[in-house]
Amino acid sequence: MEKKEMLYEGKAKQLFATEVTDQLIVHFKDDATAFNGQKKGQIKEKGKINNKITNFFFKLLEAEGIKTHLIRELNQTDSLVKKVKIIPLEVVMRNLAAGSLAKRIGFTEGKLLRQPVIEFYYKDDQLGDPLINISHIELLKLAEHQELEKLIALSHKINYILSKFLKARKIDLVDFKLEFGKTASGEIILADEITPDTCRFWDSQTKEKLDKDRFRRDLGNVEAAYQEMYQRITGQKWQ
Amino acid sequence: MEKKEMLYEGKAKQLFATEVTDQLIVHFKDDATAFNGQKKGQIKEKGKINNKITNFFFKLLEAEGIKTHLIRELNQTDSLVKKVKIIPLEVVMRNLAAGSLAKRIGFTEGKLLRQPVIEFYYKDDQLGDPLINISHIELLKLAEHQELEKLIALSHKINYILSKFLKARKIDLVDFKLEFGKTASGEIILADEITPDTCRFWDSQTKEKLDKDRFRRDLGNVEAAYQEMYQRITGQKWQ
Ligand SMILES: Nc1ncnc2c1ncn2[C@@H]1O[C@H](COP(=O)(O)OP(=O)(O)OP(=O)(O)O)[C@@H](O)[C@H]1O
Ligand SMILES: Nc1ncnc2c1ncn2[C@@H]1O[C@H](COP(=O)(O)OP(=O)(O)OP(=O)(O)O)[C@@H](O)[C@H]1O
Ligand SMILES: [Mg+2]
Ligand SMILES: [Mg+2]
Repeated sequence: MEKKEMLYEGKAKQLFATEVTDQLIVHFKDDATAFNGQKKGQIKEKGKINNKITNFFFKLLEAEGIKTHLIRELNQTDSLVKKVKIIPLEVVMRNLAAGSLAKRIGFTEGKLLRQPVIEFYYKDDQLGDPLINISHIELLKLAEHQELEKLIALSHKINYILSKFLKARKIDLVDFKLEFGKTASGEIILADEITPDTCRFWDSQTKEKLDKDRFRRDLGNVEAAYQEMYQRITGQKWQ
Repeated sequence: MEKKEMLYEGKAKQLFATEVTDQLIVHFKDDATAFNGQKKGQIKEKGKINNKITNFFFKLLEAEGIKTHLIRELNQTDSLVKKVKIIPLEVVMRNLAAGSLAKRIGFTEGKLLRQPVIEFYYKDDQLGDPLINISHIELLKLAEHQELEKLIALSHKINYILSKFLKARKIDLVDFKLEFGKTASGEIILADEITPDTCRFWDSQTKEKLDKDRFRRDLGNVEAAYQEMYQRITGQKWQ
């Protein structure tokens, strides 16, 4: 499968058309950004690691009955995926308080939540991806009622599967962000990525952060953290 | 009914115990604050106007079957109310985009919303009364599922009644904030106030603001706006 024109360049990935209309090639970049693009940098080999981690998780989820956009991995940094119309919501699932939730409700970072929390952010860079509620989603027609119900159910199921998988690898899944899309036939499937860029992963024992917070907060050893996550997840040494 | 000890002094009102355990006296002050207390001032005769406007609206709502905390007006600035346990949520209903909603979703101020929008803010001054969603409300046990359903239904009904009433008086009800409380017997009733402090009122023709935005945004003629609203609502000249 060959890359044709680039359809979109985001902060972490590029999307390319292919000879098949409803198939895209996703290329994972080493570029890293934080705080809505204000902080910029590179994380060595992040492209490769994130491509492989995403595909690993997407296959795991497929095996549990969750439909994803993944068709197949093409090479170290690129994958072939089903083209979808992305629902402009970032669905955030949280198991422990961290980041904006900790600030919003005044919980100490690391506090275990009694039950998973789900949040919707409006995917709009200009607005800074604000938190919105169901009433805003209805107003803006970002998703229909039934679609939302589906997103919520899928997100909880994904949280359950990933948390359990990671727990066995001594990783706490603190929180993560999902994006869903609609196929031409109207089916809602999981798209985008699941990586240390979009999840908070903490070592279960030491609580060491093994995710993009190392970059956001200048904690050092960013590359090592991404490699460590690759190893914990896949069980294989990084290259 | 006599005032006993002051139980609470807020930014706009004082609460006093009475000889009856489940009855309070609310005293409306002339003090005005904005931006979570950072801006402070006084609005001449606001206490009297807000006491009377609240009581007018609460009686109107009672007549339509909405239970409120109002027992009776005691004097110009004071009313006797049922003591409730306030549900720590500010319920905001919106008909036109303004304030934080306009910013959040990128709508021009004044844009008519296709349907009323409801929002919940966590009543916590230290956190700056943040927007929260149903999942946060469940986590924090701020209200039970059935109670929330009740709050939502009541808020929509109140919006319908007030919007219609005000429209006939050439006022657009842009948005407003409600607080609900639970009585000793567990009933949820409307509490607090409905005033130009807690609503956005715009003249339907000129779109002139007749509410606390005149104070927040230093638009001048603050007192005149409050008096004008008193007159439009009650049909009587201000003193
Ligand atoms: N299967 C898919 N079909 C179409 N678009 C997709 C698919 N999967 C992911 N996308 C979109 O591709 C883009 C990936 O780029 P990237 O993640 O770098 O974007 P970004 O910088 O996060 O910005 P934004 O998500 O706001 O566009 C995202 O816009 C994402 O929503
Ligand atoms: N019937 C009632 N029983 C008990 N408390 C009430 C009742 N009605 C209103 N209250 C509470 O009384 C207080 C009124 O004071 P005020 O409106 O000045 O407070 P505030 O400065 O807005 O701050 P806050 O609402 O955060 O306490 C509020 O805390 C309100 O929730
Ligand atoms: Mg992205
Ligand atoms: Mg108040």
